[in-house]
Amino acid sequence: MKTYIEAMNSNAMKLAEAAESISEKLEVCIALAPQFTDIRKIAESFSIPVFAQHIDPIRPGRFTGHILPESVKNAGAVGTLLNHSERRIGLAELDASIERAREVGLYTLVFANNSRVAASIAALNPDMIAIEPPELIETGIAVSKAKPETIERTIRLVKKVNPNIPVLCGAGIVSGEDVSAALKLGAVGVAVSSGVVKAEDPYSKLFELSKMLKEQS
Amino acid sequence: MKTYIEAMNSNAMKLAEAAESISEKLEVCIALAPQFTDIRKIAESFSIPVFAQHIDPIRPGRFTGHILPESVKNAGAVGTLLNHSERRIGLAELDASIERAREVGLYTLVFANNSRVAASIAALNPDMIAIEPPELIETGIAVSKAKPETIERTIRLVKKVNPNIPVLCGAGIVSGEDVSAALKLGAVGVAVSSGVVKAEDPYSKLFELSKMLKEQS
Amino acid sequence: MKTYIEAMNSNAMKLAEAAESISEKLEVCIALAPQFTDIRKIAESFSIPVFAQHIDPIRPGRFTGHILPESVKNAGAVGTLLNHSERRIGLAELDASIERAREVGLYTLVFANNSRVAASIAALNPDMIAIEPPELIETGIAVSKAKPETIERTIRLVKKVNPNIPVLCGAGIVSGEDVSAALKLGAVGVAVSSGVVKAEDPYSKLFELSKMLKEQS
Amino acid sequence: MKTYIEAMNSNAMKLAEAAESISEKLEVCIALAPQFTDIRKIAESFSIPVFAQHIDPIRPGRFTGHILPESVKNAGAVGTLLNHSERRIGLAELDASIERAREVGLYTLVFANNSRVAASIAALNPDMIAIEPPELIETGIAVSKAKPETIERTIRLVKKVNPNIPVLCGAGIVSGEDVSAALKLGAVGVAVSSGVVKAEDPYSKLFELSKMLKEQS
Repeated sequence: MKTYIEAMNSNAMKLAEAAESISEKLEVCIALAPQFTDIRKIAESFSIPVFAQHIDPIRPGRFTGHILPESVKNAGAVGTLLNHSERRIGLAELDASIERAREVGLYTLVFANNSRVAASIAALNPDMIAIEPPELIETGIAVSKAKPETIERTIRLVKKVNPNIPVLCGAGIVSGEDVSAALKLGAVGVAVSSGVVKAEDPYSKLFELSKMLKEQS
Repeated sequence: MKTYIEAMNSNAMKLAEAAESISEKLEVCIALAPQFTDIRKIAESFSIPVFAQHIDPIRPGRFTGHILPESVKNAGAVGTLLNHSERRIGLAELDASIERAREVGLYTLVFANNSRVAASIAALNPDMIAIEPPELIETGIAVSKAKPETIERTIRLVKKVNPNIPVLCGAGIVSGEDVSAALKLGAVGVAVSSGVVKAEDPYSKLFELSKMLKEQS
Repeated sequence: MKTYIEAMNSNAMKLAEAAESISEKLEVCIALAPQFTDIRKIAESFSIPVFAQHIDPIRPGRFTGHILPESVKNAGAVGTLLNHSERRIGLAELDASIERAREVGLYTLVFANNSRVAASIAALNPDMIAIEPPELIETGIAVSKAKPETIERTIRLVKKVNPNIPVLCGAGIVSGEDVSAALKLGAVGVAVSSGVVKAEDPYSKLFELSKMLKEQS
Repeated sequence: MKTYIEAMNSNAMKLAEAAESISEKLEVCIALAPQFTDIRKIAESFSIPVFAQHIDPIRPGRFTGHILPESVKNAGAVGTLLNHSERRIGLAELDASIERAREVGLYTLVFANNSRVAASIAALNPDMIAIEPPELIETGIAVSKAKPETIERTIRLVKKVNPNIPVLCGAGIVSGEDVSAALKLGAVGVAVSSGVVKAEDPYSKLFELSKMLKEQS
C-alpha cells in the first residue's frame, strides 16, 4: 500500500474490507502491507494477514524514530516486507532483520531487484522472496510478461541455494493475465500495489487478480 | 517513548493515561511521542498532544517503508520530533521535513546535539528546539545540572537567529530538581524518556517533574 | 570535477595546468576539486589550491573506506567541499566535519540547496558557502540568470547570521555573462563543473569565465 | 590500512616497501589497501597489488564526493575491498559494485560479518570473501583461534553456493600462530590491519605472519 493516500487511513480500511471479502469468497491468500500507523486498526478489524512495510534490526531500547519488530508484531502484524527497492537495506542489516523477525514471530518477504540478488537473499533463509525489477514498478508493464526469463532465472537460482523458499513476483502487474503469466513461470503469487490501489474500482481489480490466482493454483 | 517495551502498546496506554491525568490536574502541557504503531490508539483515547518520533520528507506516492507526514497527522498526531540523536537526518532533508510538517499541520520539535547545531536549526524555523547532548542520554546526569553553560549558550545563539523559537532541554533528566535547573536557565520545558519510562513508579515520577514545571513557570 | 572521466587522471592534469596558467595570467583565484586519487599528483605538480570533494568527520582509527581529513590535507589539499547536493550529509555530521577541517587546517566550502539551508549553514561558521539549486545542475541554465532572487536572498540571510562568510553560487554556469550576473548579485565567485569540464575547449571556456571574474571584481 | 595515521602517506610508503620486500623474499602474496589519496603513489612505486578500501557502484558523471571505480583503477589499484564492517553497504549496491568492479577490471574482496552473510555474498560471485566477526576486530583475539567453527562453517556454506570462491579470514590476527590456525581451517589467507600497522616493529610482524603463510601453504 506504499505511502499512497488512496491506501491510507479510511481508504486502507476499505481495501482491507475488500481483501477480506474476496479472500474468503475465493479462498485465496491476500495479505496487506499498510503504513505503520494503520497496522493496528486493520489487524484488529479484519482477519486477513497484515505485513509491516519494514522493520529495523533493533532490540527494545534507545532507538527514537525506528521500527521495533516487537511494535509491529504487537500491533497485530504477522510479517514484514524487507529490502523493497524503495527501502533498500544493507546486507548485514538484512540478515539481522530476518533473525529479529524470526525471534518475534514475524514472517519475512524480502524483495530482490534481480535474480543474483534473489539468490543472495535465499542464503539468508527468509520465508519468501519477491523478485521485482525496479524499472517496471508502476509502469503497467508486467514483469511476468515483459521479463519472463528474469522470473524463471530467479526461481532457478533461488531453488539452487534453498529449494524451500517460495518466490513471488511484482512490478507492473495490472491484470489477471499478468497473474496467470507469473504463476505459469513458477511464481506462487504476486506483489501488487498501484495496480489495485490506483485502479478505478479497486474491488473489481483485486477480484480479477485473485480469481486468476485461484484458477491457476 | 523511544523503542522501549515499557512504553509500548498497553504500557503506552498506561503512560498516556498518567500523562493526561497529571496534565489536567496540574495544568501543564505533557506531550507524548509513542512508536508509530501506537499513535492512533493513544490519540483516539486521550486528550494530550501526541508527537511522531520522525517523519520522512516525502509526498504521497511510492515510498514503501517510509513515514508519510500525512499518515501520522491522520492517525491523530499534532506534531513530530525530528533529528533526534538516535535518528539524525541530513540538513537538506531536515529543511524539507520542517516544510512538509508545516504543510500538513504538524508541529516540529527538532533536536540539536550542541549549541552551534541548535543555532543552525533555528534558521530553518521549526516550532521548537530541544538541546540534548547525546553523551548524557540515559545517564541520570541531568544536562541542566552538568552542562548549564550549554543550555545558556544554546538559548542565546538560537535567540540571535530567531528570537521566537522556544528551547527545551533533555538528556539525563530524572528529578524535579533537574527540571527546576532547566527552567532557571531559560528552557521552557524538558524532553524526558528513561527518567520516567524506566522509573519504578512512572506516574509518581511524571508527577514530580510536572509539579516542578508548574511551580517554576 | 565530480566523477567525470573528462576530469580524471591525465585529463585532470591538463585542467590543472590550464587553471594554473589562467590563474597566473589573470590574477584570479581558481581552485580545483579533483577525485581523491588525483589530489596528491595535482597538488604536487601545480601551485593552484586543491580541494577534496568530501571528508568524513572522523579521527584517525578504524574507518575502512572513509575519507580521513588528515589524508587529504597530507596529500596537499588546502580545503574541502562539504554537503554538495550529490553528497548530502547530516546536520550534526556537517558540524563535526567543519570542526575537523578546522583542526587539520582545511578550508570549507559548504553547499546549500536553498537560501534557508544556506542561513542554517552560516550558523556553523564554515569558510565559504555556495548556493546551488540542484534542479539547475548541468542544465546550462545559469542560477545567476534564472534565479537571481535566490542568490540575493541567500546572501541576505547568510549575512544576517554571519556577515563574514563569502557566498559563491553554482548550477548551470556556462558563460562569462553568467559569471557577471552572479557577481552583480553579490556572489564573490562561482562553482562550475560541466560548464568547463564538458566544454569543447575547456581552456578557452575557463579563460572566458575567469576573465569576467577579473573584470567584475 | 584503514584510516590509521601509522599507515598513511610516508608511513604507507614504508609499509609498502616492507610488503614488497617480504613478498619477494618469501614468495607470498601481500596486497595493501591504503587510503584513497595514497593509492597512486604506492602503485607507482611498488610492484605489490594495491586494493582500494571501497568503491561506489557509479558510472562516470555527476557524483561529487563518491569513489568512481575507474578512478582507483586508473590510479593503479588492481582490486577493491567491499562491505567491510566499518563501511557496510546495501545488498543491491554490493551486487552493483561487484558488477562495476568486473567491468573496469578490479578484483573484489568482500567482507562478511558471519557465515550466513558470507554464503549470501557468494551468490553474487565476488573474487574473494573475507569472514571477519566485527566484535573481534582490533582485540588481539584471533578469529582463527577464538571462533574456528565460524571459519569452518563459512567455508562450508560458501563452497555450497559457489565452490570456486577462496575464503580469507580476519579480526584479531596478531601472530604466526593465528595465521597457521586460519590456514588449517581452510582459509587461503588472512586480512590483517592493526596487528601489523600498530605493531612495535611492523616489518618483523609482517615477516612473521608471511613466513607462516609460506610454510603452511
